[in-house]
Amino acid sequence: MITLYHCRDARSFRALWALEELGLDYALEVLPFPPRARAEGFKQINPLGTVPALVADGQLMTESAAIPHFLATRYGPSDLAVAPDEAAYPAYLNFLHMGEATLTFPQTIHLRYTRLQPGRAEAAAQDYAEWFGSRLRNAEGLMAPDYACAGRFTMADISVGYAVMLALSIGLEAQVTPGMRAYFERLSSRDAFQRAKAAQGEGAIAT
Amino acid sequence: MITLYHCRDARSFRALWALEELGLDYALEVLPFPPRARAEGFKQINPLGTVPALVADGQLMTESAAIPHFLATRYGPSDLAVAPDEAAYPAYLNFLHMGEATLTFPQTIHLRYTRLQPGRAEAAAQDYAEWFGSRLRNAEGLMAPDYACAGRFTMADISVGYAVMLALSIGLEAQVTPGMRAYFERLSSRDAFQRAKAAQGEGAIAT
Repeated sequence: MITLYHCRDARSFRALWALEELGLDYALEVLPFPPRARAEGFKQINPLGTVPALVADGQLMTESAAIPHFLATRYGPSDLAVAPDEAAYPAYLNFLHMGEATLTFPQTIHLRYTRLQPGRAEAAAQDYAEWFGSRLRNAEGLMAPDYACAGRFTMADISVGYAVMLALSIGLEAQVTPGMRAYFERLSSRDAFQRAKAAQGEGAIAT
Repeated sequence: MITLYHCRDARSFRALWALEELGLDYALEVLPFPPRARAEGFKQINPLGTVPALVADGQLMTESAAIPHFLATRYGPSDLAVAPDEAAYPAYLNFLHMGEATLTFPQTIHLRYTRLQPGRAEAAAQDYAEWFGSRLRNAEGLMAPDYACAGRFTMADISVGYAVMLALSIGLEAQVTPGMRAYFERLSSRDAFQRAKAAQGEGAIAT
């Protein structure tokens, strides 16, 4: 049994999208944002108070870039993961981590100091917008044609693709090249992406 | 053939420590910090200009938390990785990502605005020091006794352990509980940790 605790269009969208790509059965709990403050009792499930919280086989996961790879390898085999003996395995693991650690975290700093606490640290908001843009262009240079690696759609594309989706929704469009917009259009036209969007319902963007 | 490009005590220490834990043959290039500006020709090897840069089987990896798991699974089998059919697999992947995405990145913001650009965004330096401390206490609550998960030392401990090592070296000692200090002492007393420290030689801390 798999349960995903999610806020609309937050990082937990990676987990929702991965569940749909794999066609797994799951229960979805869509929480108000921020869940730490607004979802009563949630800290009993996830002491961090953050989304995603994925409970699978009674165990908790909270890192949005780890969950897609977990699902593909625990409930696979699936070619949505890249196997250790494939040539693209190092690139796959690298993009899986890069999507969150390098390409999403800086955006959350920008978001915090532009929308949640405007005026508190404007230099940081600007610095990390630029830092994000620079790293995204670097990432693009390392990617294979069409997909991040391996010549096919993988969980690494969910990790990187969500970072692009976030940028396009929080005012960082200027940092996203035409090539990366085309990449995101390729990803977001997938049936599983559309099913994930439908499953979460309508509502405000949250991170 | 494996080559690691590294700056002393930077995030790339995770890769160096993992190489020593696995007993793999490797070539080590210790670069001046910051390598983007000070290591001539490095951008031909890693267009990002960052460390770690690991070149294995002719392919580049740049994400410090991905490399230990890559090494253990590509050149294993090794019980330094946790296998998909083990009960601790979700916790293992989660801590592997958490060590960098959640526990290291916020420290780099603190470091930037306290040491590299003091006065530019002091509120951000303070905010992310507190954010780091809060998340580290949360992480401690999720950890198994002695090690992050699985009842043994794994690559997840290299990911989390480096985050603690960094905190203790950049003025964030107040955010590290006695329990996490004891955890880091357990990790840093390992022979492979000591060999990694010896291999990089003496020098200033860099991130």
